[in-house]
Amino acid sequence: MANYTESIEKLIESLVKLPGIGRRSAERIVNHILGASNQESKDLSESITRVKENVRFCSICNNLSEEEICRICSDIRRHKDVVCIVEKTSDVAAIEKAGTYHGVYHVLLGSISPLEGKGPGDLKIDGLMNRIKQNNIKEIIIATDADTEGETTAIYLTKLIKPTGVSLSRIGLGLPVGSNLEYADSTTLSKSLEARRAL
Amino acid sequence: MANYTESIEKLIESLVKLPGIGRRSAERIVNHILGASNQESKDLSESITRVKENVRFCSICNNLSEEEICRICSDIRRHKDVVCIVEKTSDVAAIEKAGTYHGVYHVLLGSISPLEGKGPGDLKIDGLMNRIKQNNIKEIIIATDADTEGETTAIYLTKLIKPTGVSLSRIGLGLPVGSNLEYADSTTLSKSLEARRAL
Repeated sequence: MANYTESIEKLIESLVKLPGIGRRSAERIVNHILGASNQESKDLSESITRVKENVRFCSICNNLSEEEICRICSDIRRHKDVVCIVEKTSDVAAIEKAGTYHGVYHVLLGSISPLEGKGPGDLKIDGLMNRIKQNNIKEIIIATDADTEGETTAIYLTKLIKPTGVSLSRIGLGLPVGSNLEYADSTTLSKSLEARRAL
Repeated sequence: MANYTESIEKLIESLVKLPGIGRRSAERIVNHILGASNQESKDLSESITRVKENVRFCSICNNLSEEEICRICSDIRRHKDVVCIVEKTSDVAAIEKAGTYHGVYHVLLGSISPLEGKGPGDLKIDGLMNRIKQNNIKEIIIATDADTEGETTAIYLTKLIKPTGVSLSRIGLGLPVGSNLEYADSTTLSKSLEARRAL
């Protein structure tokens, strides 16, 4: 028998689907929501809907955006001729937090992972190659994760981009091997960007 | 500068208000929601609204309920003459999980805590005394937490209920001193209920 009412059980069910939320945390969250103001719970519920409705991928770099083109791509102060390639949109947020990078991005929305059956065709590489061909891009920094998938993706991209003659580098120093870029602290990320090695 | 779009920042803001959710967890949840199906995110958002709209306190025992009277109070199989007094609605869920208690409950919706400026007047004690007077209650088990606030509340309730002549006990054996009832495992809770001592 369920120990809670029907709508509470349903909310708990929805909450445990979220990453890092177990049944115990879900119960605590429900109790918080029950005690919260109507405004607070309305804010939460509406924010979820609004994110799903409004957020899409930037048509240039695949970063999260509420417009056709994201804030970074449409920022005239950013250097459009330097492109940093990352796996996920959360990696953009992590590098932006470091605050030392002034170029633009290209989000692959994945990495090459034979184990998960993900090949180059599953990544947003076509758009990247078009950007290199059509725009005056001078430098590309490959900032994929330092794990197997990230390294495999970096090697694949190197083979693909090297012939175009664009200056190519891979972030290196500072990112602990086997770790995910997303979890790196800002200083490590800055060091990592500074110490990039030519490929 | 915010690193995310406006609606994402707003959702993160709402999420970090929840217990146990920091900025990092909130970001991971947002990424999950962005990748989730529309149905899943709709379920989550609607569940929040529905819980706030439908859930209220049982008019008899103050447990969470979607009706005027909660499932436990309206269950004819429960022994209405045995009342277990707990601090919070989540304590009811914890004891129900143990599955060995067949009486009903009275949720105080708090505990006496001079440090937080909470006195007996802030607890649902009037309703409890009315239940004792008006109904044929034979036994009361005080299952407040084993911490200072819970013990203070137990002592206060003992003084109040003892003169009514109802058989009174306090759960004891099994609940580690200084801990919260809510976190106890089912076996400990069962033992604790079995080994209640008369007051």
